[in-house]
Amino acid sequence: MEIRDAQPADWDAIWPFLHEIVVASETYAYDPEMSEADGRRTWMTPPPGRTAVATLDDGTVIGSSSMYANRPGPGSHVASASFMVDASHAGRGAGRALGEDMLAWARQRGFRAVQFNAVVETNERAVGLWGSLGFTVIGTVPEAFRHPVHGLVGLHVMHRFL
Amino acid sequence: MEIRDAQPADWDAIWPFLHEIVVASETYAYDPEMSEADGRRTWMTPPPGRTAVATLDDGTVIGSSSMYANRPGPGSHVASASFMVDASHAGRGAGRALGEDMLAWARQRGFRAVQFNAVVETNERAVGLWGSLGFTVIGTVPEAFRHPVHGLVGLHVMHRFL
Repeated sequence: MEIRDAQPADWDAIWPFLHEIVVASETYAYDPEMSEADGRRTWMTPPPGRTAVATLDDGTVIGSSSMYANRPGPGSHVASASFMVDASHAGRGAGRALGEDMLAWARQRGFRAVQFNAVVETNERAVGLWGSLGFTVIGTVPEAFRHPVHGLVGLHVMHRFL
Repeated sequence: MEIRDAQPADWDAIWPFLHEIVVASETYAYDPEMSEADGRRTWMTPPPGRTAVATLDDGTVIGSSSMYANRPGPGSHVASASFMVDASHAGRGAGRALGEDMLAWARQRGFRAVQFNAVVETNERAVGLWGSLGFTVIGTVPEAFRHPVHGLVGLHVMHRFL
């Protein structure tokens, strides 16, 4: 597994699993009708943000992260990020490797903390991963996410200092 | 005091106090270098969102609100909103009137709750107003806002069901 900066040409490999995750509507509050062009604008973050990919030894892209300042101006010292991993390559540690890479990037860029604004509380894999990487739940907005199986569930705000 | 939908021509009255508030950087995590065009795009929310203004009997615009779904897709049943009141007309109840108007709008549009993502904890006027209108603090992201006087202060996530 390698983590590297995404190149524009990587989008063709990211979109299929990103689209599948958005349509499933179980882990992200994105518009499930999102077009490929909207997806690209949302995910392929221009500098000073960054998009990264996780690749197998043969170059296959199996996951991606997108990172940026969470807010402009007086909030720009806190980073945020989003993560997508191809379901057919789950369990290989791509999420953890992408998370560790994002933390290193945020530290290197001088951010003081990282905040996730909306971690679906039933997304146990994500909640557990972020907990193991030092994030705590600041609070949970009740019933803020309409899950296709579990109904209305909470969205965690998660945070860690760097 | 009247609260009514903003018209495009109201922008010329909104921008001076909005710009003053953004430059002060005490209550909003907006880019203090925000241009007037960026300000207009940020504030004058197209349908299905809404921008409203508070006016005096002589028609003077003394405050404004901007309201919208907080997230798309599976999060679109929760509204959010932003509020600005001209400092030279503070204390007349424009903030409360705009807040009550926003709650009525969100109920009428079928939202189930309203969430504020980033209420500066030292903004006692706002924190007190939202508390009196039924909002509770879900959590406070520590040191997430760089206040020009108080230094690093927290950002409250505030919420109420409708």
